[in-house]
This record gives sequence, structure tokens and C-alpha cells, in this order.
Amino acid sequence: MPDHPIKHAALLFAMQDEALPLIRRLELADKGPISPPMPMRWYDGAVGALRIDVVVMGADRRFGIDCIGTQPAAVATQLVIDKLDPDLLINAGTCGGFIKRGGEIGKVYLTGGPFNFHDRRIPLAPFEKYADGGWTLCDVDAWAQALGLEQGAVSSGNSLDMNDDDAARIERAGTIAKDMEAAAIAWVADQHEKPLCAVKAVTDLVDGPHPTHEEFERHLHTASDALSETLDKLLNYLADENRR
Amino acid sequence: MPDHPIKHAALLFAMQDEALPLIRRLELADKGPISPPMPMRWYDGAVGALRIDVVVMGADRRFGIDCIGTQPAAVATQLVIDKLDPDLLINAGTCGGFIKRGGEIGKVYLTGGPFNFHDRRIPLAPFEKYADGGWTLCDVDAWAQALGLEQGAVSSGNSLDMNDDDAARIERAGTIAKDMEAAAIAWVADQHEKPLCAVKAVTDLVDGPHPTHEEFERHLHTASDALSETLDKLLNYLADENRR
Repeated sequence: MPDHPIKHAALLFAMQDEALPLIRRLELADKGPISPPMPMRWYDGAVGALRIDVVVMGADRRFGIDCIGTQPAAVATQLVIDKLDPDLLINAGTCGGFIKRGGEIGKVYLTGGPFNFHDRRIPLAPFEKYADGGWTLCDVDAWAQALGLEQGAVSSGNSLDMNDDDAARIERAGTIAKDMEAAAIAWVADQHEKPLCAVKAVTDLVDGPHPTHEEFERHLHTASDALSETLDKLLNYLADENRR
Repeated sequence: MPDHPIKHAALLFAMQDEALPLIRRLELADKGPISPPMPMRWYDGAVGALRIDVVVMGADRRFGIDCIGTQPAAVATQLVIDKLDPDLLINAGTCGGFIKRGGEIGKVYLTGGPFNFHDRRIPLAPFEKYADGGWTLCDVDAWAQALGLEQGAVSSGNSLDMNDDDAARIERAGTIAKDMEAAAIAWVADQHEKPLCAVKAVTDLVDGPHPTHEEFERHLHTASDALSETLDKLLNYLADENRR
């Protein structure tokens, strides 16, 4: 875990629907856009002595939908670190899980990495490792044990589906959670040497029989509620650690 | 073209080797990192009455190589707009060309869009258009005509290679230039309502007989020299327009 006590955690969510259960549960204040005209929205509050910021990607100016994917996530991470300078970044959201690795709808993972990209293929020797990433940015062993949560590799890409190239990289890394943001957040966090963990709730089973986009829509609210409950526990655990 | 006169242009390059010929040609001053500890480097100078900033992605802290790809490009664009507020963004760099659309090694395109992504597949109705992008952010007709340059669609993704999913999207858009940054820059520029054009020099022929990564390495310097020459002409043209 990070060397210094965590007094201030910033949570990054891609979608409003993923974040709302936690925002309501913690009664966070709506601070508006964190850096207009960029769409990212900022909420703040506290859990005990732990200061909490939540940043959600917000709605695209032109298309009107949540800015999911790695490009907005990278920009949001830069804005959060630059403007809020938290002790810990938490990427919270939903993910695809894998039946063959114990994944179930609504299951929640807590992990400090490795965070990989599965859709950056750059077959030039010095760029290959950079393309994949593989960042581990926080030791969450004690937290995961205390909360009874499983850890493992997260893999990010800009597609909700998965083609053969993606699948090969996802498999090679023993991925438990497929998402669309974590590795981009990890890249920015790594440049700043900021600790990052991810809390990811399963909306769909990548190796199951149902199309990802159908499962995603069906289970988004269930998974987001489970996510909020786990985040509440984690934040209270971190707040309690502060008092020791 | 943009409504107001262009007094200040900011150029975004992914790789140092792509940018150096222009930096030397215009004798730009090295201003160091634009927002440490992020790796992006900043150079400034002028062409006549036109103020010029150049921002290059810089070297990854961990992997030591140029931060190519869409995530650093998105962050760099946010930093450039936030800190420098130029009248015009120019994404300058190398690209893959297409023989079937008249592409040749060293050919240079000037385009204001459309800028598309070819590796963001989100088959949920409201997200599909956002995923593809399709931003046109600058009317460059007069500039392209004056300089004798061809225009057309640019398509961006995080891989140097191209798989079938990428190829289908690249083909559908009638793409003339395949790159790894333009669409990410376009997304950020669009949130800020900033005009963006791209100047792209062909290093490799995507539909040719040679593997992309071999051609890319062989032609990077030739293409970067051609790029620098065209950029010099464009910047002088814009500077002259200012005097009218």
C-alpha cells in the first residue's frame, strides 16, 4: 500500500449511472465541471477523516452521452491530479468478467494492477512494452484481505466487444476484469507516481453465452449498486486506517 | 477556415523524430516540459507575425520511448489549450497511406477532417457515433488549394498494424491517412470548440506489399523532412494571411 497515510482519495468513474449510487450514499456535493468546457463533473465530500472527491467523465458536447473510453479517462486523470492532488486514485466502475476465472454478475474486484491495454499493438521493439502497459501502482493486499475481495489483472480497450487480437492479449495476462478506462488512468498516474487501485463490478461475462452489450445494459444498475456498497466499505476501511 | 485571424498556431507532434526537422528549421526555443511531471515537451517561436508553439509527447517515465497513441495525445491537447490557448491546433506527423487512394511514400496531406477512430467499437445505439467520431473541425479548402495539397479523412487507432475490424472502419470512411493520434486530439479540440487541422506525411503504404513497421522505420526521416517543408509553407501562408 502507499507509504504515507491516505487522507484524500479521488474516485474516477466513466458513467453517471455507475457513480450515482455512491454519490447519493455519501451525500457528496455537486461542484460542477472540474475544468470547463471539458465535460468531467466533480463531486466532493468525506467519509470520517477521509476527504473524498469523485470525478465522472460527463456528457460529450456533441453526442450528449457519457464520455466512456480511454481518451477521456486519461484527460480526467490529469485534471484530477493537477487540480485535486489526492493521495490515492481509485478507478471505480463496471467491467466484463470471465466465468473461467470465477467471474459472476455483480461480483466486485479490488486490484492495484497489473493494468494492461489489450488494443495497442505496436510491433516495434522499444514500443511493445509501453503499448501493453502492465502497470501495478498500489499494493492492496491488506485492503482486499480485510474486505474479502479478489484481486487480479485488469485489461482496457476502447471497444465494448472483444475481437481475436484483444482476446489473445486478455488471455495472455490472465485478465479477471475487462474494462474501457483503467489502463489509461494508470498511464497518467504512473507519470505522476500516484498510487492507483481499481474497484470493478461485473456487468457481463465475456466468455458467457450472451452478447456483451445486452448483458451490460441489463446488469448496469445491479452492478453499480454492488460497486457502491463495496466502495463504501473500502472508504470506511481507509478512513479507519487513518485513525490508527 | 476559422472565423477570426490566426495569430497563434500550436502544433502537436507524437514523436521527437517527426518534430525535430521543423524545430530546427524554425529555430524554436526549447521551453522544457509544458506540465511536469508529464513528459510533453514545449518549444516556441514565430514565423513572421504568427506565434508558433510546438508540443511533442515526450518520453515515457518508465519505458523511455516517445508517448505515441491516443491517450497521451488527448492529455497533450488539453494541456496545450489550457496553457497556451492557440487560435488553431495543427496535428503534424506521419501516417500510413493507401495506394488505392493515391498514397505515396513522402506525400503530405492537409485536412480539417473528418477525424475518425477505427478501434472504438461500442454497439450501444447512443454510443456508436461517439465511438467513431467523425469530427470536421476546420475548413482548409483555401489553404490546401494555395499549397497544392490533397485533403481527406484521417482515421486513428492505437495500433501500428491494422486488423479486420480496423480495416472495415478505415474503408467505410474512405480514409487517406491512418495514424495514432488525430482523432483523440479532435475529441478534445471539439469539447473546447477549437479549430484543428492535420498535416500528415506518408511513411508506409497500408495496402502495399511491405509490413508497416518495416516501412515506418525505413521512411520516418524522409517523411519527417517532407512534413517539415510543408509545415513551413503552411505557417508562412498563415503568417502572410495575417498581414492582409
